[in-house]
Amino acid sequence: MEETVISKVESSVTGELYKINWTKSMSTENVANSMENTSDPNLDFGETGRIPAIAQDAETKEILMLAFVTPEAVARTKETGRAHYYSRSREEIWEKGATSGHTQNVQEIRVDCDGDAILYLVDQKGGACHTGYQSCFYRTIDGEVVGEKVFDPEEIYE
Amino acid sequence: MEETVISKVESSVTGELYKINWTKSMSTENVANSMENTSDPNLDFGETGRIPAIAQDAETKEILMLAFVTPEAVARTKETGRAHYYSRSREEIWEKGATSGHTQNVQEIRVDCDGDAILYLVDQKGGACHTGYQSCFYRTIDGEVVGEKVFDPEEIYE
Repeated sequence: MEETVISKVESSVTGELYKINWTKSMSTENVANSMENTSDPNLDFGETGRIPAIAQDAETKEILMLAFVTPEAVARTKETGRAHYYSRSREEIWEKGATSGHTQNVQEIRVDCDGDAILYLVDQKGGACHTGYQSCFYRTIDGEVVGEKVFDPEEIYE
Repeated sequence: MEETVISKVESSVTGELYKINWTKSMSTENVANSMENTSDPNLDFGETGRIPAIAQDAETKEILMLAFVTPEAVARTKETGRAHYYSRSREEIWEKGATSGHTQNVQEIRVDCDGDAILYLVDQKGGACHTGYQSCFYRTIDGEVVGEKVFDPEEIYE
Protein backbone atom coordinates (compact mmCIF):
# COMPACT_ATOMS: atom_id res chain seq x y z
CA MET A 1 0.00 0.00 0.00
CA GLU A 2 1.17 3.49 -0.74
CA GLU A 3 2.02 5.79 2.08
CA THR A 4 -0.03 9.00 1.83
CA VAL A 5 0.75 12.34 3.41
CA ILE A 6 -1.89 15.02 3.36
CA SER A 7 -0.83 18.68 3.43
CA LYS A 8 -3.16 21.62 3.72
CA VAL A 9 -2.36 25.07 2.37
CA GLU A 10 -4.50 28.13 2.90
CA SER A 11 -4.76 30.81 0.22
CA SER A 12 -4.09 34.21 1.74
CA VAL A 13 -6.20 35.80 -0.97
CA THR A 14 -9.35 33.73 -1.03
CA GLY A 15 -8.94 32.00 2.31
CA GLU A 16 -9.61 28.69 0.56
CA LEU A 17 -7.87 25.56 1.72
CA TYR A 18 -6.02 23.45 -0.83
CA LYS A 19 -5.37 19.83 0.06
CA ILE A 20 -2.59 17.74 -1.45
CA ASN A 21 -2.29 14.00 -1.17
CA TRP A 22 1.35 13.02 -1.51
CA THR A 23 2.21 9.41 -2.15
CA LYS A 24 5.67 7.90 -2.13
CA SER A 25 5.17 6.64 -5.67
CA MET A 26 4.63 10.10 -7.15
CA SER A 27 7.06 11.11 -9.87
CA THR A 28 8.79 14.46 -9.66
CA GLU A 29 6.55 15.71 -12.45
CA ASN A 30 3.43 14.64 -10.61
CA VAL A 31 4.63 16.30 -7.46
CA ALA A 32 5.30 19.51 -9.41
CA ASN A 33 1.83 19.37 -10.94
CA SER A 34 0.18 18.61 -7.63
CA MET A 35 2.02 21.57 -6.15
CA GLU A 36 0.50 23.94 -8.66
CA ASN A 37 -2.04 25.25 -6.20
CA THR A 38 0.16 24.77 -3.18
CA SER A 39 2.92 27.13 -4.18
CA ASP A 40 2.89 30.70 -3.04
CA PRO A 41 -0.76 31.56 -2.62
CA ASN A 42 -0.23 34.89 -4.36
CA LEU A 43 0.71 33.07 -7.57
CA ASP A 44 -1.59 31.55 -10.19
CA PHE A 45 0.21 29.17 -12.56
CA GLY A 46 -2.93 28.46 -14.60
CA GLU A 47 -3.32 25.57 -16.99
CA THR A 48 0.23 25.58 -18.33
CA GLY A 49 1.82 25.42 -14.88
CA ARG A 50 4.22 28.24 -15.67
CA ILE A 51 4.22 32.03 -15.73
CA PRO A 52 6.58 34.66 -17.14
CA ALA A 53 9.31 36.01 -14.89
CA ILE A 54 11.11 39.29 -15.45
CA ALA A 55 14.62 39.85 -14.11
CA GLN A 56 15.34 43.50 -13.35
CA ASP A 57 18.62 44.92 -12.08
CA ALA A 58 17.82 45.95 -8.49
CA GLU A 59 20.11 48.97 -8.69
CA THR A 60 20.02 50.34 -12.24
CA LYS A 61 16.43 49.11 -12.83
CA GLU A 62 17.44 47.86 -16.29
CA ILE A 63 15.30 44.95 -17.46
CA LEU A 64 17.72 42.10 -18.00
CA MET A 65 15.68 39.18 -19.33
CA LEU A 66 12.36 37.41 -19.44
CA ALA A 67 11.94 33.67 -18.94
CA PHE A 68 9.34 31.33 -17.48
CA VAL A 69 9.04 29.84 -14.01
CA THR A 70 7.19 26.89 -12.51
CA PRO A 71 6.31 26.59 -8.81
CA GLU A 72 9.45 24.48 -8.41
CA ALA A 73 11.67 27.13 -10.06
CA VAL A 74 10.28 29.77 -7.69
CA ALA A 75 10.80 27.46 -4.71
CA ARG A 76 14.45 26.87 -5.68
CA THR A 77 14.97 30.61 -6.17
CA LYS A 78 13.63 31.30 -2.68
CA GLU A 79 15.67 28.45 -1.24
CA THR A 80 19.01 29.41 -2.81
CA GLY A 81 18.64 33.17 -3.27
CA ARG A 82 19.72 32.72 -6.89
CA ALA A 83 17.36 33.04 -9.87
CA HIS A 84 16.01 29.78 -11.29
CA TYR A 85 13.78 29.46 -14.34
CA TYR A 86 12.01 26.75 -16.32
CA SER A 87 13.14 25.92 -19.85
CA ARG A 88 10.17 25.09 -22.06
CA SER A 89 12.38 23.53 -24.75
CA ARG A 90 14.49 21.41 -22.40
CA GLU A 91 11.58 20.89 -20.00
CA GLU A 92 13.74 21.42 -16.96
CA ILE A 93 14.56 23.89 -14.22
CA TRP A 94 17.78 25.81 -14.79
CA GLU A 95 19.80 28.16 -12.68
CA LYS A 96 20.80 31.36 -14.42
CA GLY A 97 24.60 31.44 -14.64
CA ALA A 98 25.14 27.75 -13.88
CA THR A 99 27.28 27.50 -17.05
CA SER A 100 28.49 31.07 -17.55
CA GLY A 101 28.96 32.07 -13.93
CA HIS A 102 26.67 35.02 -14.62
CA THR A 103 24.38 34.31 -11.71
CA GLN A 104 21.60 36.50 -10.39
CA ASN A 105 21.38 37.07 -6.66
CA VAL A 106 17.75 37.76 -5.97
CA GLN A 107 17.16 40.71 -3.64
CA GLU A 108 13.38 40.65 -3.77
CA ILE A 109 10.57 38.80 -5.53
CA ARG A 110 7.41 40.64 -6.54
CA VAL A 111 4.15 39.34 -8.01
CA ASP A 112 1.65 41.15 -10.17
CA CYS A 113 -1.98 41.92 -9.34
CA ASP A 114 -3.32 38.73 -10.94
CA GLY A 115 -0.47 36.57 -9.64
CA ASP A 116 0.32 35.38 -13.14
CA ALA A 117 3.64 37.15 -13.58
CA ILE A 118 6.64 37.46 -11.31
CA LEU A 119 9.51 39.91 -10.96
CA TYR A 120 12.98 39.10 -9.68
CA LEU A 121 14.95 42.13 -8.52
CA VAL A 122 18.52 40.93 -8.93
CA ASP A 123 22.17 41.66 -8.55
CA GLN A 124 23.49 40.43 -11.91
CA LYS A 125 27.04 39.07 -12.14
CA GLY A 126 28.51 39.67 -15.63
CA GLY A 127 25.93 40.09 -18.39
CA ALA A 128 22.48 38.58 -18.47
CA CYS A 129 22.36 37.79 -22.19
CA HIS A 130 24.09 34.80 -23.78
CA THR A 131 25.04 37.10 -26.68
CA GLY A 132 27.33 39.12 -24.40
CA TYR A 133 25.03 42.04 -23.76
CA GLN A 134 24.13 43.25 -20.29
CA SER A 135 20.42 42.82 -21.12
CA CYS A 136 18.61 40.51 -23.53
CA PHE A 137 16.60 43.56 -24.62
CA TYR A 138 19.58 45.13 -26.37
CA ARG A 139 17.77 45.85 -29.68
CA THR A 140 14.84 47.99 -30.73
CA ILE A 141 12.10 46.31 -32.74
CA ASP A 142 13.72 47.79 -35.87
CA GLY A 143 16.98 46.02 -35.13
CA GLU A 144 19.00 48.96 -33.83
CA VAL A 145 21.42 47.91 -31.11
CA VAL A 146 20.94 50.10 -28.03
CA GLY A 147 22.36 47.84 -25.31
CA GLU A 148 25.83 47.53 -23.86
CA LYS A 149 28.04 44.55 -24.66
CA VAL A 150 29.85 43.48 -21.51
CA PHE A 151 31.51 40.16 -22.36
CA ASP A 152 32.63 37.99 -25.27
CA PRO A 153 30.32 34.97 -25.44
CA GLU A 154 33.00 32.87 -27.18
CA GLU A 155 35.20 33.16 -24.11
CA ILE A 156 32.38 32.24 -21.74
CA TYR A 157 30.51 29.45 -23.53
CA GLU A 158 32.95 26.92 -24.95
CA MET B 1 -18.94 38.04 -52.51
CA GLU B 2 -16.64 38.95 -49.73
CA GLU B 3 -15.24 42.42 -49.50
CA THR B 4 -11.48 42.31 -49.51
CA VAL B 5 -9.15 44.97 -48.21
CA ILE B 6 -5.50 44.66 -49.01
CA SER B 7 -2.98 46.22 -46.66
CA LYS B 8 0.69 46.52 -47.33
CA VAL B 9 3.22 46.68 -44.56
CA GLU B 10 6.85 47.48 -45.16
CA SER B 11 9.48 46.00 -42.92
CA SER B 12 11.76 48.75 -41.75
CA VAL B 13 14.54 46.20 -41.27
CA THR B 14 14.54 44.23 -44.51
CA GLY B 15 12.58 46.70 -46.60
CA GLU B 16 10.38 43.83 -47.76
CA LEU B 17 6.72 44.42 -48.42
CA TYR B 18 4.21 42.18 -46.74
CA LYS B 19 0.72 41.99 -48.10
CA ILE B 20 -2.36 41.13 -46.05
CA ASN B 21 -5.73 40.31 -47.54
CA TRP B 22 -8.48 41.15 -45.07
CA THR B 23 -11.98 39.90 -45.71
CA LYS B 24 -15.03 40.89 -43.75
CA SER B 25 -15.76 37.26 -42.95
CA MET B 26 -12.40 36.64 -41.28
CA SER B 27 -12.59 35.89 -37.60
CA THR B 28 -10.28 37.78 -35.29
CA GLU B 29 -8.27 34.60 -34.88
CA ASN B 30 -7.82 34.20 -38.61
CA VAL B 31 -6.72 37.78 -38.96
CA ALA B 32 -4.18 37.27 -36.19
CA ASN B 33 -2.91 34.10 -37.85
CA SER B 34 -2.78 35.64 -41.30
CA MET B 35 -0.67 38.47 -39.91
CA GLU B 36 1.75 36.19 -38.13
CA ASN B 37 4.31 36.27 -40.90
CA THR B 38 3.74 39.86 -41.75
CA SER B 39 4.87 41.11 -38.41
CA ASP B 40 8.33 42.33 -37.50
CA PRO B 41 11.02 39.90 -38.63
CA ASN B 42 12.82 40.25 -35.30
CA LEU B 43 9.88 38.66 -33.48
CA ASP B 44 9.07 34.99 -33.09
CA PHE B 45 5.49 34.36 -32.01
CA GLY B 46 5.92 30.58 -31.91
CA GLU B 47 3.08 28.10 -31.84
CA THR B 48 0.76 30.10 -29.60
CA GLY B 49 0.93 33.22 -31.77
CA ARG B 50 1.59 35.46 -28.80
CA ILE B 51 4.52 36.54 -26.65
CA PRO B 52 4.84 38.34 -23.31
CA ALA B 53 5.19 42.12 -23.36
CA ILE B 54 6.60 44.17 -20.49
CA ALA B 55 5.62 47.80 -20.03
CA GLN B 56 8.32 49.85 -18.32
CA ASP B 57 8.09 53.53 -17.41
CA ALA B 58 10.52 55.20 -19.83
CA GLU B 59 11.58 57.76 -17.24
CA THR B 60 11.50 56.13 -13.80
CA LYS B 61 12.27 52.65 -15.23
CA GLU B 62 9.61 51.14 -12.97
CA ILE B 63 8.09 47.96 -14.41
CA LEU B 64 4.40 48.72 -14.79
CA MET B 65 2.76 45.53 -16.06
CA LEU B 66 3.14 42.37 -18.09
CA ALA B 67 0.62 41.22 -20.68
CA PHE B 68 0.67 39.32 -23.97
CA VAL B 69 0.83 40.57 -27.54
CA THR B 70 0.02 39.12 -30.96
CA PRO B 71 1.47 40.44 -34.22
CA GLU B 72 -1.71 42.49 -34.63
CA ALA B 73 -1.36 44.05 -31.17
CA VAL B 74 2.21 45.07 -31.97
CA ALA B 75 1.13 46.45 -35.35
CA ARG B 76 -1.59 48.56 -33.70
CA THR B 77 0.87 49.79 -31.09
CA LYS B 78 3.28 50.93 -33.81
CA GLU B 79 0.45 52.46 -35.79
CA THR B 80 -1.10 54.45 -32.95
CA GLY B 81 1.87 55.01 -30.64
CA ARG B 82 -0.27 53.70 -27.75
CA ALA B 83 0.25 50.30 -26.11
CA HIS B 84 -2.03 47.50 -27.30
CA TYR B 85 -2.11 43.96 -25.90
CA TYR B 86 -3.95 40.70 -26.50
CA SER B 87 -6.35 39.36 -23.89
CA ARG B 88 -6.15 35.57 -23.66
CA SER B 89 -9.43 35.33 -21.73
CA ARG B 90 -11.44 37.66 -23.99
CA GLU B 91 -9.49 36.59 -27.10
CA GLU B 92 -9.21 40.12 -28.40
CA ILE B 93 -6.82 43.00 -28.84
CA TRP B 94 -7.23 45.73 -26.25
CA GLU B 95 -5.78 49.18 -25.87
CA LYS B 96 -4.41 49.93 -22.44
CA GLY B 97 -6.44 52.78 -20.96
CA ALA B 98 -9.35 52.53 -23.42
CA THR B 99 -11.72 52.34 -20.43
CA SER B 100 -9.78 54.05 -17.67
CA GLY B 101 -8.05 56.73 -19.70
CA HIS B 102 -4.76 55.45 -18.29
CA THR B 103 -3.12 55.09 -21.67
CA GLN B 104 0.52 54.31 -22.39
CA ASN B 105 2.32 56.39 -24.97
CA VAL B 106 5.04 54.15 -26.33
CA GLN B 107 8.41 55.87 -26.67
CA GLU B 108 10.33 52.83 -27.86
CA ILE B 109 9.80 49.12 -28.49
CA ARG B 110 12.58 46.65 -27.75
CA VAL B 111 12.81 42.93 -28.45
CA ASP B 112 14.84 40.31 -26.63
CA CYS B 113 17.65 38.18 -28.06
CA ASP B 114 15.34 35.32 -29.10
CA GLY B 115 12.58 37.61 -30.32
CA ASP B 116 10.07 35.93 -28.06
CA ALA B 117 9.54 38.77 -25.61
CA ILE B 118 8.94 42.45 -26.15
CA LEU B 119 9.43 45.60 -24.09
CA TYR B 120 7.36 48.77 -24.35
CA LEU B 121 9.06 51.85 -22.90
CA VAL B 122 6.10 54.04 -22.06
CA ASP B 123 4.85 57.29 -20.70
CA GLN B 124 2.05 56.08 -18.39
CA LYS B 125 -0.96 58.31 -17.81
CA GLY B 126 -2.45 57.69 -14.35
CA GLY B 127 -1.67 54.28 -12.83
CA ALA B 128 -1.04 51.10 -14.80
CA CYS B 129 -2.83 48.71 -12.45
CA HIS B 130 -6.60 48.28 -12.33
CA THR B 131 -6.29 48.09 -8.52
CA GLY B 132 -5.18 51.72 -8.36
CA TYR B 133 -1.46 51.16 -7.99
CA GLN B 134 1.11 52.75 -10.25
CA SER B 135 2.48 49.29 -11.10
CA CYS B 136 0.83 45.86 -11.16
CA PHE B 137 3.91 44.59 -9.31
CA TYR B 138 2.98 46.38 -6.09
CA ARG B 139 3.38 43.36 -3.79
CA THR B 140 6.23 41.12 -2.75
CA ILE B 141 5.72 37.38 -3.10
CA ASP B 142 4.94 37.32 0.62
CA GLY B 143 2.06 39.75 0.15
CA GLU B 144 3.72 42.88 1.50
CA VAL B 145 2.54 46.00 -0.33
CA VAL B 146 5.53 47.96 -1.60
CA GLY B 147 3.95 49.94 -4.45
CA GLU B 148 2.33 53.33 -4.56
CA LYS B 149 -1.45 53.72 -4.88
CA VAL B 150 -2.17 56.56 -7.28
CA PHE B 151 -5.93 56.40 -7.94
CA ASP B 152 -9.17 55.02 -6.56
CA PRO B 153 -10.36 52.22 -8.89
CA GLU B 154 -14.00 52.73 -7.85
CA GLU B 155 -13.92 56.22 -9.26
CA ILE B 156 -12.35 55.10 -12.53
CA TYR B 157 -14.12 51.84 -13.36
CA GLU B 158 -17.86 52.20 -12.91
